[in-house]
This record gives sequence, structure tokens and C-alpha cells, in this order.
Amino acid sequence: MRPENAHQAVLLRLLREGGRSRAELGDMVDLSRSKLNVELDRLIELGLVEPDGLAESRGGRRSGKVRLSRQTRFAGIDIGATSVDVAVTDGELNVLGHLSEPCDIREGPAVVLDRAVTLLGKLREQGLYSQLHGVGIGLPGPVSFPEGVPVVPPIMPGWDRYPVREAVSEELGCPALVDNDVNIMALGELHAGLARQVGDFLLVKIGTGVGCGIVVDGKIYRGVSGSAGDIGHIRVDDDGPICACGNSGCLEAYFGGAALAREATAVARSGRSPYLAERLAAAGELTAQDVAVAAAQGDAAAIQIIRDGGRRVGQVLASLVSFFNPGLVIIAGGVARLGHVLLAEIRSVVYRRSLPLATGNLPIVLSELGDIAGIVGATRLISDHVYSAG
Amino acid sequence: MRPENAHQAVLLRLLREGGRSRAELGDMVDLSRSKLNVELDRLIELGLVEPDGLAESRGGRRSGKVRLSRQTRFAGIDIGATSVDVAVTDGELNVLGHLSEPCDIREGPAVVLDRAVTLLGKLREQGLYSQLHGVGIGLPGPVSFPEGVPVVPPIMPGWDRYPVREAVSEELGCPALVDNDVNIMALGELHAGLARQVGDFLLVKIGTGVGCGIVVDGKIYRGVSGSAGDIGHIRVDDDGPICACGNSGCLEAYFGGAALAREATAVARSGRSPYLAERLAAAGELTAQDVAVAAAQGDAAAIQIIRDGGRRVGQVLASLVSFFNPGLVIIAGGVARLGHVLLAEIRSVVYRRSLPLATGNLPIVLSELGDIAGIVGATRLISDHVYSAG
Repeated sequence: MRPENAHQAVLLRLLREGGRSRAELGDMVDLSRSKLNVELDRLIELGLVEPDGLAESRGGRRSGKVRLSRQTRFAGIDIGATSVDVAVTDGELNVLGHLSEPCDIREGPAVVLDRAVTLLGKLREQGLYSQLHGVGIGLPGPVSFPEGVPVVPPIMPGWDRYPVREAVSEELGCPALVDNDVNIMALGELHAGLARQVGDFLLVKIGTGVGCGIVVDGKIYRGVSGSAGDIGHIRVDDDGPICACGNSGCLEAYFGGAALAREATAVARSGRSPYLAERLAAAGELTAQDVAVAAAQGDAAAIQIIRDGGRRVGQVLASLVSFFNPGLVIIAGGVARLGHVLLAEIRSVVYRRSLPLATGNLPIVLSELGDIAGIVGATRLISDHVYSAG
Repeated sequence: MRPENAHQAVLLRLLREGGRSRAELGDMVDLSRSKLNVELDRLIELGLVEPDGLAESRGGRRSGKVRLSRQTRFAGIDIGATSVDVAVTDGELNVLGHLSEPCDIREGPAVVLDRAVTLLGKLREQGLYSQLHGVGIGLPGPVSFPEGVPVVPPIMPGWDRYPVREAVSEELGCPALVDNDVNIMALGELHAGLARQVGDFLLVKIGTGVGCGIVVDGKIYRGVSGSAGDIGHIRVDDDGPICACGNSGCLEAYFGGAALAREATAVARSGRSPYLAERLAAAGELTAQDVAVAAAQGDAAAIQIIRDGGRRVGQVLASLVSFFNPGLVIIAGGVARLGHVLLAEIRSVVYRRSLPLATGNLPIVLSELGDIAGIVGATRLISDHVYSAG
């Protein structure tokens, strides 16, 4: 069930921020009082909105309050390389339940999507919903947003052009939308994170790969073929390591899960870090997480790895900040848990190398949403769709 | 005189593309036939639109044609570092008259703006207008768009925070808007150039400096503090020449009017180019234009200078294309007249270094509008304002 016209859509999006009196809504939209009431009454008839008592008097007659229907339920599915998260929210996108499981993306779409649907089923059994009004899905790779399918995703064998949107929509019996993980994290920050009051911002995710969500005027900017924000293969310099893409000196070839693991292993073998050498001997391999733990213990070689990586992220980001002049930059993702050493290095390079006009008032911060950015953003994505005129 | 509501604004912008029958307009807008006629009749009363005879029959009664008032006049003023251009257009932004004069920006705002107004006066004396409905102004430096004033413009002594918009608006007795030269060139391309059907594109101007106009969804994207597109100080590498900004290896320190003149002089003195040596001896100095002429004559050293510059522009542009995924890149400005050698080098680097998804369908072209891009864009800027609800 979707709104019938643009006025109803505006009202639903306002109510997504919380219930309001009719008088308050009248102050916020460009509609006559009688037209406003017609639209609200119609939304109540459609089951999208419900009355919610009377507001405090503002001097005259008390105004009726309205809110989104208490029955409204959205689901968010956030599929990562090694995990799947699902959540159910109400119409205001408050998380009512959240489940997470390890899951290998390489098991393919049939298995992985079945896991997600099964997890959602558990939330249904807990009584959190009977019928979903929409589901948003995030995938760790390039997605054709209009078609709702992954497109040549490098770390997702078997997923290329699999009809994810169609399959999940059919399975759950509600509208579905699919986007890449970075875009849904950016939407999560826009809805519930540090970007709430910011129209134009960047969300840089540093994890297995490096990607960027671009928000222009409160909406995801996807570019003409949907690849906007794909910054992992931006050149840092010509003499750097060869990247999986075939070029040399790409950002991801320097910094990202695989590059960090490789550098950590080299450091461990060289004897420059007793901690990493010990971890390597014990576990047989090293990960970005090991570098983070080593750095937190004051391991000089690990801190140097993070600083070097931060400097390269900063160099790329400095260019993007000069070009895009955002109001905020949020750093997120697994490697972002390397924390304040990383942030300090990124800041230092961006503030030095970008134009003063672009950085004079630019906060560069670590995400505070953590793991829920993706699922909240996924529900935001689908609710933007459901709360738009059909 | 501006439209009274959003419907009238939409109709005016449609008519800016050319006159139409009421029936055709009815097919293009989301208005009932009777409401459409009310709004059109009101626009005729306001003097913004006029009747224009009857359309061919589409089967039934012949529909009345309408067009923008023949009295509508916009002016564009494009102030460069060494020249001033003015033009007067009708409501559809057809150029009715265009004058250009050499003029040194360093003479300061009072002198330069007086020159522009005097040039426009000549067009008035030719009978091209009696009253202007709006004027758009482009300046070769950073502009605070909301305030209509230049902000610390590096090559414009005496202009910092000079109230350009206010002064010109008062002098000409009509609304005025001021923007930087790159943004108005981008608007010119959007209105009359190669970008007519493209929502998201980049206009890269290579002249005395290097700048970029960013168009998102048919509108200039200015960033949160108005500095978006200021790409001249993006890092190419760390070991490059020291830039006027204090950093090293900026794009402008490699390529731009001053860098080209410097490299040409070095080449001339080294004896690697007899042509440039001769020009240097004759003129006492060399410019980017000399490099262009030498390259056109097949001078190997000049062609190498252009190739090296094109490679660096290409490296920066490759990053921006991966990030922004535009539908078109237009290269413009004085140095762009270096032409196809430059274009070939830029294309080669961008197509090799950007993501295949972003370049698969990406034309990179030289501007075909040339000198009029700025003045047409300036009239587009002000007509967008005049043709929006007040």
C-alpha cells in the first residue's frame, strides 16, 4: 500500500520522523488546512496512518494527533562478505529486533538469501511482524539499482545478475530494493547517525575493499551507470603495488583487508613485531583485526602500518574533498575500527592538502552507528520507496 | 516580474525551449486542462508569455500557441582575466547581440564592471533592449553564490567581497546573479552545448587555472561552502613543482597557463624547439598559445609538453570519473585549444585508469561552444532564477 499523490508522500516522510498534530503538520507543508485533512483522512483509510489522541492546546481547539500505523513493518537485510544481519523496524524505523549470523557470501545467492529469510522468520515467530511492508537489501559488491541485481561482483561468485530483488520480494510478499553496502550505510548515517542534519556528505567504508557513499541533497548519488563512489581503484601513485584490477598503486592495493593482512605478515616475518609474529605462528595467518589489536597494545610496527594506510586514504580523500566540498566525512567499516590513529592520519592529510574553503568547516569523524548502519539504511531505502507516490 | 507559483515556473522553463501549443503543454505537465489554461492566461496577464496564433489541428479544434514574451531580455556578462564579454538574449536565450573587449581584471571592480555596463549600453543603443529582465555574471575566481560576492579571488586584486551582484543589479535595474566562470560555462553547455541531454556531467576548464563545473541532475552542484569543483590543487604526486598554494605537485603547478609558459620557456632556452626559441627572442616571453601554435606545426618538444600536461589532467580526472561516474566530460578553456593531442592523452589515461563501469559509455569531448559558453550560461543562470516561483 503506497500513497496516492505527492502530498501524501510528504506527510508520510514527515511522520517517519515521529507523530505530529494536524496543526503542526499544517505549519510544515504547503497545503490548505482542509486539503491537509482530506489527505490525512485518506492516509488513515489506506491504513498507512492512524489517529493518536489530541495534542496539547495551542490556544484554541485541541488538534488531533496522527502517527504512522503501528502495524507498519519494514525489514532490512545487510549481507556482508562473512555475515548476514537482518532487522525488523516499525514505520519510524525504530529497530524492533536484530539478528546476525556468520555466513559466507561464496555459498551463493540461493543459500545466503535463504539464511536471511530464515532469520527474518525467527523475528516473525517472536511476534515482531505478521506482514512486511517492504524490505531493503544491501550487498557487498556493485549493484544495478534499477534492476536490483549484482553486476560482476568480485567477491561474490555465483551472484552475477542473480535477481535478488525479485527473489526476496516474492519470498516475503512485499516490495524490495537492493543497493550496495556502502550506499545503505550512508543512508543509515543520514537517518540515525552523525549525518542527520547534513545534506551533502561522504561515507567512506574501509573494509575488505574501500568504497564511498555519496549523498547529495539528502539522496544517494549513484552516477549514470550506478558506479559512483567506487574509489578503491583511484590511483595513489604510479609506483605502488600491483592491484587485482591490473593497474598499479590503487588505493585498495595499499589499504584494505587484503593489503593489511599482507603487510602485517611481512612485518611479522621481518621480526619487527613480536606480537604479530606470535599471532602468525599461532593462527597461521594474520588479518586487519590483528593489526588493530597490536596497535592498541602500542606495537610500533602495527601503528606504522595504520599510519601509512591512513596517509593514502587521506591523499585520495583530499582530492575528493576539494572536488565535492562535502559538509561531513564519515569513516566506517571494519578497518575503521583501527580507530583514532587512522582518523588522526586521515585528518592530517586532508586538512593539509584540500582547499581551505573546503576544509574550513569540515568534520571528519568515525561512524558511531557501527554494525546497525547497514540494516537501518536498508529500511530507510525501502521506506523512501514505499513512502513515495506510486 | 516572476511567476507566482511552481506550475507557472515549470511552464516558463518549458517555453524557454521554444513556443508550444496549449495542447502540447498539456501533454508535458501534470495539470488539468482547465488549470493549465488558468496558469497560462495569468502568465499572459503578467506579460511573461504571449499568444502566438493557432497550432496545426491534431484532429479536433486547433489549439492556441503560446510563447515567451517577445519583449523579454536577459543579459550575460562574462568577465575573464583579460577580457570582458557581454550579450543580450531573448527569453529563449537566443543571442541577439554579443560584444567583447580586452580588459584587465586587475583594474578592479569599479572600472571593469563599468566597462561591462558600457558595453551593454551599446547593445541598448542598437535597439536590442529597453529594459532587462535579469543579468547573469561570471567571474574568474571563487564566488559566494548566496551573497553574490567574490571571496579571496587570487587573480583579482581589489575584488574581495566587492558587492558585484548588488552593484550590477542596481545599475541595470533588474535581478542579478553572480557565479564563477566554470559554473556558468557548464550551464552554457547544459543549455546550448554537448550536454543538452545529459543530467550529470563535468566541465573541466583548463586556462590560467584549472577548474571543474559539476552538474547533478541538471543543476550546478556547489558544495556546502561553494568551493566544489576547485580541482586545481588536487595532488598529482608528492615530488612535483611547488605550487602557489604552498603544497607541491598540484595539478595547476604542472598544467595551466603559468606552468605551460614556464615549461615552454625552459624548452626554448634548452634549444629543443627552434620555433619556441624564435618566438621567445621576438616577444620576450612565451604563452600557452605559443605552445599550441608550435604543436600545430609539429614541433616535437611542444607536443611533448601538451602530452605531459594531458597525462596529469587525465590522472586527476580518472579519480573524479571513478568517484562521480558522470555521463559526459567536456574539456574547455584556453589551454583546451591545444586540441586533439591534449584530448587524446586525457582520454587514454582516463579510459585506462578509471573503472570500466564508469567509462564504458563515457564520452570525453572538447567544448564546441567556445567563447559563448560563458555568456549563454550566465543568461541561463539568471533565467533559471527569474523563471522560478518567487
